[in-house]
Amino acid sequence: MSEPKRLTAPVPPGGTIGILGGGQLGRMLALAAARLGLRTHVFCDDAQSPAFQVSAAHTVGKFDDLAAIATFAQGCDAVTLEFENVPAATVAHIAQLRPMNPSAEALRLTQDRVVEKDFLRDAGLRTARYFSVTSEDYFETALLMCGSPAIFKTRRMGYDGKGQTRVDGEDDLARAFAGLGSAPGILEGFVDFAFEASVVAARGADGSFAAYDPPQNAHEHHILRRSTVPGRLTTAQAEDAKAIARKIADALDYVGVLAVELFVLKDGALLVNEIAPRVHNSGHWTMEACAVSQFEQHIRAVAGWPLGDPGRHADAVMENIIGEEAEAWEAYARRGGALHLYGKGEARAGRKMGHFTQLFPLTKS
Amino acid sequence: MSEPKRLTAPVPPGGTIGILGGGQLGRMLALAAARLGLRTHVFCDDAQSPAFQVSAAHTVGKFDDLAAIATFAQGCDAVTLEFENVPAATVAHIAQLRPMNPSAEALRLTQDRVVEKDFLRDAGLRTARYFSVTSEDYFETALLMCGSPAIFKTRRMGYDGKGQTRVDGEDDLARAFAGLGSAPGILEGFVDFAFEASVVAARGADGSFAAYDPPQNAHEHHILRRSTVPGRLTTAQAEDAKAIARKIADALDYVGVLAVELFVLKDGALLVNEIAPRVHNSGHWTMEACAVSQFEQHIRAVAGWPLGDPGRHADAVMENIIGEEAEAWEAYARRGGALHLYGKGEARAGRKMGHFTQLFPLTKS
Repeated sequence: MSEPKRLTAPVPPGGTIGILGGGQLGRMLALAAARLGLRTHVFCDDAQSPAFQVSAAHTVGKFDDLAAIATFAQGCDAVTLEFENVPAATVAHIAQLRPMNPSAEALRLTQDRVVEKDFLRDAGLRTARYFSVTSEDYFETALLMCGSPAIFKTRRMGYDGKGQTRVDGEDDLARAFAGLGSAPGILEGFVDFAFEASVVAARGADGSFAAYDPPQNAHEHHILRRSTVPGRLTTAQAEDAKAIARKIADALDYVGVLAVELFVLKDGALLVNEIAPRVHNSGHWTMEACAVSQFEQHIRAVAGWPLGDPGRHADAVMENIIGEEAEAWEAYARRGGALHLYGKGEARAGRKMGHFTQLFPLTKS
Repeated sequence: MSEPKRLTAPVPPGGTIGILGGGQLGRMLALAAARLGLRTHVFCDDAQSPAFQVSAAHTVGKFDDLAAIATFAQGCDAVTLEFENVPAATVAHIAQLRPMNPSAEALRLTQDRVVEKDFLRDAGLRTARYFSVTSEDYFETALLMCGSPAIFKTRRMGYDGKGQTRVDGEDDLARAFAGLGSAPGILEGFVDFAFEASVVAARGADGSFAAYDPPQNAHEHHILRRSTVPGRLTTAQAEDAKAIARKIADALDYVGVLAVELFVLKDGALLVNEIAPRVHNSGHWTMEACAVSQFEQHIRAVAGWPLGDPGRHADAVMENIIGEEAEAWEAYARRGGALHLYGKGEARAGRKMGHFTQLFPLTKS
């Protein structure tokens, strides 16, 4: 293959940004693009995609249908994605036709948990202890490396706690391995963290960098419940978090928004949990608390625009609205704050249906 | 005709709001509806309408094509508009089929400048002196009533200074009358104001009321240049302005957002210039400075939802981007603030292409 297409000039207002994936992140990306006078074309395999409702054009197609993908890409000035599990071949194919970000290489390094951890280690960043498990032969070594308890995860396709299970001792690993389909996985040491945090940041096509203040995150049943900014991070930790994001973004030659999920240890150290090469749930509060949201920031980056100011003009608490909680939409609408609903039809258990952000006067980062 | 349809229950998430008019106001209404999980169907006579790019459905049709209008309305759960010059018959027709706000009656009282001024007078509100001019026979009396200089305006269809001209003395009125097509008009006394202001407010289907802090407005060539909040209004004037909006909204039994343009006199008194029965350019700053923008507030009202908190968490200055100023979009994108571009193709002189809002730490209202 030849070199991927690069952005040589910004996509002007009136141009079209292609978005792979039509869920709530694609929807909020499309809404952000519209603010800037850009059109969007959303490609998704689900004919009921929420993002279709707010885009100028959409295509229903399989992500591995390269003919459909090519037709889609040719109608766009630049292409991006809302979820990291787009097939690498698809992303590489688009990159031959149009500027595509994040790049196939950035996805390759973050789609697979073992490759990702190796990449982080090579970048000099701390992670949990981990060990690649390809067969039962490695169980003993794996637990020796990681200690017990540990977390066994599939190498690919996990989100919101899917594709992972806790392992208590060597006997339990056989159950975990079988339970996740006996596919190659990764065993990660249990991290006894003080709290979780994340940093959402953007790198522009010109190498510029802008990070939002890192929120503290709380999960329930492996799903993000709440992001609070500022959280319990000290100013030094917040700066550390931003520096970690910058190191990762530079090492990936990344263009767009990425999120880095962090564990903050009791001794104050930051461990990288994982990289999300996309806009991220823990950055939704930027829609109200910043002049330029993570969604607009991502669109700016992939369209070759200057990055916006990530400065925050308010403190914020963002809470997800999950599953049947969305039935209480009228009660949310009565509360003082910003309600977002994603236009999803069915409120299945664990499905992210919306979020609610409360703003408070600005204190410190 | 039978009674208009009324909202008996809120339109739930997933429901469809119809919008008459596909310009930037319709576009920003559609974007706000999307935040709440509502779909939009935009009806406009212009196939290149900016709002079409962000709506789930659209219809290109004439506003007086009642068959097309009926088909459109039947696909919606509630209908609203982005501009006040929709034919009254069209609005009345929709109101037989679906909850339609603002109502035909509210439009009747605000579409015609003479009727509007009479309505304001009857509501006990101060306006400029005015006189209805139907033929040249009235010139002498009109100038006697209004003084000179005065402003001659068409009774209908004026916006951004269109359909109005200054009159200096009795001889000049003949020129003005002929210049605007010798149609019935209104002569208004010249108001030597200290500055201009406006108040953007909403009335819910349940009669609830919520007003944003009134901005100070600056016009250039009869087009809004800048809205600043807080402006030079005192706290008492701001409260007066909100009370005027409430009086008007109650008197119109209004549902939705309306704007009242005001003259602030040198002695501190407030005069009503005109009523806009819709979201308004001088309220665009609410998109960043408030948790619930004027656009979302309007959607909430016409969908029968509870009104949101109009509280402001920042000071703001909104500037319009007009005509060829939009060519500098990249320079705007580099400035610290929120850039909005409307997705319009051609940057004709005087055409509103976008706006730019800067936020500042909250002072007082």
